[in-house]
Amino acid sequence: MNFGAVVHIIGKILLTIAAIFVLPLTVSFIYKETGQLAFFIPMAILLALGLIMTVKPVKRKNVYIGEGFLIVVLSWLLISLFGAAPFLISGAIKSPVDAVFEMVSGFTTTGSTILTDIEALPHSLLFWRSFSHWIGGMGVLVLMLALTSNKDVKTFYIMRAETPGPKADKLVSKTKYTAQILYVIYMGLTVLEIVFLLLGGMPLFDAIVTAFATAGTGGFAIKNASIAAYNSVYCEYVIGIFMLMFGVNFGMYFLLLHGRLKDIWKSEELRCYLIVVAAATVVVAFNISGIAGSTAETVRQAFFTVSSTITTTGFVCVDYALWPTASKIVIFLLMFIGSCSSSTGGGIKIIRVIILAKLGLREIKHVGSPRIVRSITFDKKVLEPSVVSGIAAYIIVYMFIVGISVLLLSFDNLTFTESISGVVTCLNNVGPGFESIGAVGNFAALSDFSKIVLCINMLLGRLELFPILALFSRSLWKV
Amino acid sequence: MNFGAVVHIIGKILLTIAAIFVLPLTVSFIYKETGQLAFFIPMAILLALGLIMTVKPVKRKNVYIGEGFLIVVLSWLLISLFGAAPFLISGAIKSPVDAVFEMVSGFTTTGSTILTDIEALPHSLLFWRSFSHWIGGMGVLVLMLALTSNKDVKTFYIMRAETPGPKADKLVSKTKYTAQILYVIYMGLTVLEIVFLLLGGMPLFDAIVTAFATAGTGGFAIKNASIAAYNSVYCEYVIGIFMLMFGVNFGMYFLLLHGRLKDIWKSEELRCYLIVVAAATVVVAFNISGIAGSTAETVRQAFFTVSSTITTTGFVCVDYALWPTASKIVIFLLMFIGSCSSSTGGGIKIIRVIILAKLGLREIKHVGSPRIVRSITFDKKVLEPSVVSGIAAYIIVYMFIVGISVLLLSFDNLTFTESISGVVTCLNNVGPGFESIGAVGNFAALSDFSKIVLCINMLLGRLELFPILALFSRSLWKV
Repeated sequence: MNFGAVVHIIGKILLTIAAIFVLPLTVSFIYKETGQLAFFIPMAILLALGLIMTVKPVKRKNVYIGEGFLIVVLSWLLISLFGAAPFLISGAIKSPVDAVFEMVSGFTTTGSTILTDIEALPHSLLFWRSFSHWIGGMGVLVLMLALTSNKDVKTFYIMRAETPGPKADKLVSKTKYTAQILYVIYMGLTVLEIVFLLLGGMPLFDAIVTAFATAGTGGFAIKNASIAAYNSVYCEYVIGIFMLMFGVNFGMYFLLLHGRLKDIWKSEELRCYLIVVAAATVVVAFNISGIAGSTAETVRQAFFTVSSTITTTGFVCVDYALWPTASKIVIFLLMFIGSCSSSTGGGIKIIRVIILAKLGLREIKHVGSPRIVRSITFDKKVLEPSVVSGIAAYIIVYMFIVGISVLLLSFDNLTFTESISGVVTCLNNVGPGFESIGAVGNFAALSDFSKIVLCINMLLGRLELFPILALFSRSLWKV
Repeated sequence: MNFGAVVHIIGKILLTIAAIFVLPLTVSFIYKETGQLAFFIPMAILLALGLIMTVKPVKRKNVYIGEGFLIVVLSWLLISLFGAAPFLISGAIKSPVDAVFEMVSGFTTTGSTILTDIEALPHSLLFWRSFSHWIGGMGVLVLMLALTSNKDVKTFYIMRAETPGPKADKLVSKTKYTAQILYVIYMGLTVLEIVFLLLGGMPLFDAIVTAFATAGTGGFAIKNASIAAYNSVYCEYVIGIFMLMFGVNFGMYFLLLHGRLKDIWKSEELRCYLIVVAAATVVVAFNISGIAGSTAETVRQAFFTVSSTITTTGFVCVDYALWPTASKIVIFLLMFIGSCSSSTGGGIKIIRVIILAKLGLREIKHVGSPRIVRSITFDKKVLEPSVVSGIAAYIIVYMFIVGISVLLLSFDNLTFTESISGVVTCLNNVGPGFESIGAVGNFAALSDFSKIVLCINMLLGRLELFPILALFSRSLWKV
């Protein structure tokens, strides 16, 4: 383990986080709020630590998968802890566990909240809370790689450890440029959404923070009633469509910028994603017709909720607790499926679901005629058996984590449905669950133990299990 | 596909079923009941069809995996349909779908019932209903193989297709003798349980049918209140322990008969099974203490329910709807785990859960140090990679079936919990679910569509997915 490089990179992360703090501070000054100390104190500590850790040059350049995992896990823990500090120092959230839960939920782009009255927060904290989604969506390490020079450390494994999906392709040969391109696309789409929301009459501050939460597929709103508070058909469609867009593999936008439209349409994952969204919208719309009101209202509620769930954003335009069971089950299943790989969304990811389905179909054929060798293809390319078995192992570990987490959560004062949906919504980084933790509920009433279990679930989900779990493997430390 | 052999074997199955009908008929005469026609009519049809199908000698002896699957699936459909006839002809069950559901539930040893007043049935039908568990537990094909001479067809693949677990080992070299040994052990244990129940003061008829339902890990009781109706601590312990015993791999009893106690204790699956039972009992007992009454009462309720659930029997000694969520989640998870391979129980099976856990742990180590080759061992032997990947594929197909079935069921007038638990309890051949289909409920109120979905789930669970699914693969028919 190249600890020198780990310390150096973590130092850079701390400096990056310190730099990010400038934004909520600015908001605080614009709105002439008091209590800037809540941001200054953690910022000062981050700066001091960051400078100390980066002052020594790195001796060995090589950073492999083990260092990548350690750096990613440490930096996500640190950003969540330091991110929680302003809430605690300002007194907006009293309990340290609650503050950390809120920020883990923010950075992992889950959007589950322990706040019972969101609108009571000052602008600076509202901004910080939503901005955490924006940072977490693309990843704090990717941001660090985009911002800083890393000639002294090989950084591919760091980026790979943070990027969602079974494979991380670099868009261009250099990791730094890939990170920059990703952030430029990300920023461009975010600005576009802000403009569209402003055109719909949404106030500037609301438009900005809503776009942050959409971009990261996070789901924190600044209104207690979430997006339903704006009561705007136009804005719900804008947000619904942008959620979908942020759930698309960002490589598609890179292709789009290069005019390679044919290659986009060839993407199996994208087509499947759109088909699932369309099918789920149709099923929910038929299922809730008669409840929602007019046909237009029905379609909008169905589309928005499907888009919000499959992208694992978790924005709410209607209380789906009032919907029939079939719609709830559709939502529940979409939570598992999740969005495309290399997007800001969570869940198992469409690409894995497709490959797992193909694996299942192959096995069904295989048991009937075992002597025929069948390979699994994706995007018309034959997949390496190791990729397929890796995805199978991923889903198996995932199921064990669901089982163990649900059991741990069930010791709290929750119902059967709450225990299961709580884990599923947090592990898949969605946000709301069902019943008391549902669309109009929150996670405030849970015990500290349950909140910690769900924090671990959110981090496991965002980092896709293995970077965290592999740290418990001795062999990782020996390399 | 060797259709000649398929027809011949199916003919033998029909004759075997006809022979079985003698037993409920005898019961009918003993209790001087009327309506023997309800058994005579299907018996006559079975005899006629069976004789016609077996009269022609088989030209080609070879029967492979495809024929095995076809024979197993056809015979399970036929036994369920013919088994339902007495209920329909006698008028005890009015709806054909209900009658078939009850018998599929019986033969697959699920034990979910659509009857609202079980005690209203005559003795002959109560006997037939419980006896279906006993036949289904070990398998109708295994019975046929044990009873008839099959010199003209190679039968290993038929047995393999019906035996639960990822691998079917023959106890002795000849399939016929293996089948006979299994049935002798099975019968011996059943008689032992009857004796123990009689010693506890249970009436003879009740003792016999309860033993049938225990042996097959089925769960049909002849009292509306299930086992709770007997209000006997002794009987509950007898049944609790015998359920556990029938959830053990029958190969263990073969070893026991040969005095190979050391080999039994070396069995990883058996040890893990007992550890899970003990751990679950402790967790539930602590969780329900204060609700159940005395400590003795608490431990008994916990042990009985854990044993009933992990063996997928589904007998009820207490309404667990009144228990806290943690106990419900334990029950829910035990439904998935299920019993040992080559037992009469259902579920995923302990052996698969162990191997999946090892596969998950290997992957966690693998991502940290990918260059080290690690094999998975079971019972201290290295497993073939094809066995491991087969189990991984099994669980993936299993999860897809759970998802699709829950979605289909959710269109009925059920709650979220009912939709999920209905599928889980039927696919794993347990019996009761939660809420209206729970310990004190039944499946009567479901729509015909839902009942058919659950019938398919019960058959998929009992036959372990692939014999049914592979019939939809074209390549199977070409071999």
